[in-house]
Amino acid sequence: MSGLRLYSMPSSGNSYKVRLLLSFLGLEYTHIACENGSAALAEAKASGNAPMGKLPALHLPDGNILSESNAILCYLAQGSGWLPENSLQQAQMLAWMFFEQNRHEPVIAVRASLRTYPERAHLATPARMEELLESGHVVLALMEEHLSSNEWFAGTQASVADIALYAYTHTAGSRGGYDMARFPALNDWLPRIAAMPGYVPLEAVP
Amino acid sequence: MSGLRLYSMPSSGNSYKVRLLLSFLGLEYTHIACENGSAALAEAKASGNAPMGKLPALHLPDGNILSESNAILCYLAQGSGWLPENSLQQAQMLAWMFFEQNRHEPVIAVRASLRTYPERAHLATPARMEELLESGHVVLALMEEHLSSNEWFAGTQASVADIALYAYTHTAGSRGGYDMARFPALNDWLPRIAAMPGYVPLEAVP
Repeated sequence: MSGLRLYSMPSSGNSYKVRLLLSFLGLEYTHIACENGSAALAEAKASGNAPMGKLPALHLPDGNILSESNAILCYLAQGSGWLPENSLQQAQMLAWMFFEQNRHEPVIAVRASLRTYPERAHLATPARMEELLESGHVVLALMEEHLSSNEWFAGTQASVADIALYAYTHTAGSRGGYDMARFPALNDWLPRIAAMPGYVPLEAVP
Repeated sequence: MSGLRLYSMPSSGNSYKVRLLLSFLGLEYTHIACENGSAALAEAKASGNAPMGKLPALHLPDGNILSESNAILCYLAQGSGWLPENSLQQAQMLAWMFFEQNRHEPVIAVRASLRTYPERAHLATPARMEELLESGHVVLALMEEHLSSNEWFAGTQASVADIALYAYTHTAGSRGGYDMARFPALNDWLPRIAAMPGYVPLEAVP
């Protein structure tokens, strides 16, 4: 696994997922930071180092490039405890990861980005922000319900589904403006991730 | 695999994905049709047979229930040619499936549903329909670019990524109103799926 190069955006949750797993796994890699609005980001897109203009992009030693954060997580997790061995639990893990990309990220990450990046502020109309607030609370309540009777999202230990969901949930209050006090099981789960050996924090928005 | 029961919505693309793979695999199953607006759908949601209110829901013989169409596809495809053996190709397959749930379904399926289901028509404002049209053409162009130099989305034969993307793409013109004449490689790929043994069509909106 040596020779890995990661193009990622330091302040982005999707990019953070991959850096977090690489750190948990103790894997060495070269990080090419492409922060929002930077020349490095423009160059990564123009050069094809970020295929389809998307970050994160993991460059493998053989020259292949993987995109889509959750697909990269599944690839890197192979052979580790971050991927359940049981096929039923793997399907449940994937279900939460598709949920994350279809229902969580388009609402919670989007609301956070509208509050965070000045160039997006004009899109943050009161009606849209209210709609994203309500639908985000529904999404968080579905996670809360699961965590009320399960320690992790799939299987008997933390999997890449937990990493995928952690990325934009742990800043849903601070960046997204969601009322996290409603979700006690979520508030127990978040620090369980942060206490794991190798944890690294998300970088601030510059 | 006997004893499978599938709760699905006959006219829905997400549900169709699973019926299509079950048919390609030649697997027997009991189908509980829960069409939009039906009493069967209301009962499936109320009884917990459609967890989180979502269809499709695959009930396994041991009582476990799988949700999220793309996770169900990955589960059912195990041991078949619909899942590439190579881990790199599997990651590329998953990348297209996350793309489908994050960028394709929320645009192309949503525009189709706004044109198809009368109870959603009030949400189909001209501005929204135009925005969904433009962003859908961008999504289709990304698929077109890939298919211009690849026969399938991942690996050397059709995988569940092709099924996931087929579901809402093959009706993007008829239901969604997208200009499919722009995408010749897509128009070559769609009939390759439809020509495969075991193919079944999507059911019409009632």
